[in-house]
Amino acid sequence: SCEKLKNYTQAEEGKKSRKMSFKNLKIKPGRLLTTIHETAKAFGAKGVWGPESTQTGVCRLTLSDLDKGVRDWFIDETKSLGCEIKVDEIGNIFAIYPGKNNNAAPTAIGSHLDTQPTGGRYDGIYGVLSGLEVLRTLKENEFVPNYPIALINWTNEEGARFPMSIMASSVWAENIPLETAYKLESVTDAEPVTVEHELKRIGYLGPNKASYKTNPIKAHFEIHIEQGPVLEDEKKLIGIVTGVQSYAWYKVRVFGKAQHTGTTPLAARSDALLATSQMIVKGNELAKKHGCLFSVGVLNVKPAVVNVIPEHVEFIIDVRHIQDKGLSAILGEIKKEFPKIASESGRALSLEFDHIYTSDAVKFHDDCIACVRESASEIVGADLAREIISGAGHDSCSTSTRVPTSMIFIPSKDGVSHNPAEYSKPEDVHTGFEVLMSAVLKYDSLRKD
Amino acid sequence: SCEKLKNYTQAEEGKKSRKMSFKNLKIKPGRLLTTIHETAKAFGAKGVWGPESTQTGVCRLTLSDLDKGVRDWFIDETKSLGCEIKVDEIGNIFAIYPGKNNNAAPTAIGSHLDTQPTGGRYDGIYGVLSGLEVLRTLKENEFVPNYPIALINWTNEEGARFPMSIMASSVWAENIPLETAYKLESVTDAEPVTVEHELKRIGYLGPNKASYKTNPIKAHFEIHIEQGPVLEDEKKLIGIVTGVQSYAWYKVRVFGKAQHTGTTPLAARSDALLATSQMIVKGNELAKKHGCLFSVGVLNVKPAVVNVIPEHVEFIIDVRHIQDKGLSAILGEIKKEFPKIASESGRALSLEFDHIYTSDAVKFHDDCIACVRESASEIVGADLAREIISGAGHDSCSTSTRVPTSMIFIPSKDGVSHNPAEYSKPEDVHTGFEVLMSAVLKYDSLRKD
Ligand SMILES: NC(=O)NCCC(=O)O
Ligand SMILES: NC(=O)NCCC(=O)O
Repeated sequence: SCEKLKNYTQAEEGKKSRKMSFKNLKIKPGRLLTTIHETAKAFGAKGVWGPESTQTGVCRLTLSDLDKGVRDWFIDETKSLGCEIKVDEIGNIFAIYPGKNNNAAPTAIGSHLDTQPTGGRYDGIYGVLSGLEVLRTLKENEFVPNYPIALINWTNEEGARFPMSIMASSVWAENIPLETAYKLESVTDAEPVTVEHELKRIGYLGPNKASYKTNPIKAHFEIHIEQGPVLEDEKKLIGIVTGVQSYAWYKVRVFGKAQHTGTTPLAARSDALLATSQMIVKGNELAKKHGCLFSVGVLNVKPAVVNVIPEHVEFIIDVRHIQDKGLSAILGEIKKEFPKIASESGRALSLEFDHIYTSDAVKFHDDCIACVRESASEIVGADLAREIISGAGHDSCSTSTRVPTSMIFIPSKDGVSHNPAEYSKPEDVHTGFEVLMSAVLKYDSLRKD
Repeated sequence: SCEKLKNYTQAEEGKKSRKMSFKNLKIKPGRLLTTIHETAKAFGAKGVWGPESTQTGVCRLTLSDLDKGVRDWFIDETKSLGCEIKVDEIGNIFAIYPGKNNNAAPTAIGSHLDTQPTGGRYDGIYGVLSGLEVLRTLKENEFVPNYPIALINWTNEEGARFPMSIMASSVWAENIPLETAYKLESVTDAEPVTVEHELKRIGYLGPNKASYKTNPIKAHFEIHIEQGPVLEDEKKLIGIVTGVQSYAWYKVRVFGKAQHTGTTPLAARSDALLATSQMIVKGNELAKKHGCLFSVGVLNVKPAVVNVIPEHVEFIIDVRHIQDKGLSAILGEIKKEFPKIASESGRALSLEFDHIYTSDAVKFHDDCIACVRESASEIVGADLAREIISGAGHDSCSTSTRVPTSMIFIPSKDGVSHNPAEYSKPEDVHTGFEVLMSAVLKYDSLRKD
């Protein structure tokens, strides 16, 4: 059927056919944005950046009470549209809107309702609520798709509270074991708790196995804000996302020696924080050299006392490259250079690397990309859309390892994200939703399984 | 009277007179060490470094439950020796052993019972328990000194839990306001609490004003482990401490911008942790250049998430120099270089310095030094003692701003301190105590007020 899709899209592209019935659906303009703002207000609005009540970000850490709140709301809303709800053992929620052929795997729209501590109103949320707006539109128009449509809220996409991004979609795709995810400990709580503990606590450790095998979907579409400056800079309205760069997270542990800061000569020290600082500087130099990205966002010092030389520093590196090969190359240098720094920086420093997660570079599926490209052409015109590679990871990275997947981007003001001031224009928010609905229903209309 | 003392010591030095009655006091060898080990065991033993039960450090953070425990014990012990107890409003405990002339200000022996989180069994504790051993010895020998002797346990010498070292002796000396100390917030608790809160909680916010004016002492003697390698390297048994180097603590706040690590080009970032790392490296370079010390032991990153560029880093610098002038010089460079780093490191970084505390270089009092020197000569011989400058701050820095003060050091194995493996030999522990008792009773015998 993928071949057929490809043939179809090659043949039809550019024709801007208005024949298909879903193109006549009546849309309620503004409702999507209202839902974005109302849910932000109800579930975690935080970080004022302007005078309007909508000018805040959102802090809704995964599996927190606020996350439970928005999940309960999400289930109520989708149930009221006639969806069947499946919650799996890692907390992913599948709201399945019925089609004509309910024995087949649904076409999916997915993203996430969790945010960063310094999150905005759009990252992830925009994707799930656009999917909800699709279902609401179908319902109001009494439009029955050929196949069921699953709207998915993936658990812990951000990797903020529990340091593994696209966590639960990775479990569903069987790219990481359930137990690995269950055991992850929070980095944002004073007393760390595990994913399993929090799933149980908020009542979202569901009965369904988290697996693309037993809970399959046919394809995955995701709309997201770009989170970077490209579309805005080039005055494009739609990004046709063709892939995602690769990235890896490692925990690094530096072991020095606790000593008195006032009595220990510089040359006699094993200062784990000085060595760490040298590593952070070096990591940035290497990233410049390789034309890629390096950062440290999490860092803890022990014993954390002014007059004790740090004996132990633990930090997490985030390294990204457009190609898997390039990522391997810089990681190789880091694994050579950091131990060198440790051995040269102090008397008795040692080092450990712990691999947390690698997200390989992703190339999305031609059929899904074609549905997006064609929809964008029809709605904004080919000139206002462009192909783009995502710098950020998304749940679509996980799904694309198992089923045809693609994404749609809309512009982000100043490319700002993971910051309360994240912003996309109301008209762009609306346009993106239209492209999403069109792409998904195009895919639905072409499926022949 | 200081002049008289000076004349006396100049005249008498080298005579090794055995005439004075306190030289015939009977001493219980081993009891001091037993007390050190028993109190360690009862109040916070932690950090195993060897197979023996005494081979651990101690973690007894100031104003913790364990600190309350050892304080209660200290009061019981000193009361049973006939001491009068005064607790002041910052928790300093004065246990006053009566002399012949109880209207005069006592001669004091002081140090601290609080420790570092990675503390040993000796730092501070050795000083207070040696003082207790002096009082026990006087009591057993029914020796009545000319003047009362105050044994003082100063609150929060370490500055570990609340980041200001020699805190409560500084309040007593009126070098910092009581309110400043009260408002200090803990850096080692998950939820920060204030000094005032913790004083009340453990019942040690006492009724006496903390002031050298209303609660005076005549002089202050303190014995301490060296915490550095000099005595051991030179095979000396006693350090005649003539002064203490200067040091300053500043809180530095770096403000960057929270942004997405996967979508924000290196050149577009304001990475507060990268800038901080560059500052830590620079601070160490400057210390090397100035022949002094620099370290960062406390550092906090916000929002502390792997895929968010740090928007705010707060850290505390500890800078030390043998001379006040040298300290000013390096601090001047730091205050010029750090803002330069901030402005060059990212797009929109800014910086704040907050002064926490400066301990000026200290020169101890000739009379007290003479009592120590003479005692050391008598007990170990002049060849096995040497003058020494302390790298670490001590409560004696505070007292010396108001009354004649000096200190005695004994060797520290490998110069290690602020580490559980801190160790001094039993025979050195005993010898130091003898020198302390001799110096204090010598001073007592020479006082003419
Ligand atoms: N979209 C997004 O912010 N995802 C978080 C995963 C990542 O770190 O790229
Ligand atoms: N003696 C000692 O460790 N004092 C702590 C104060 C300092 O930081 O020097």
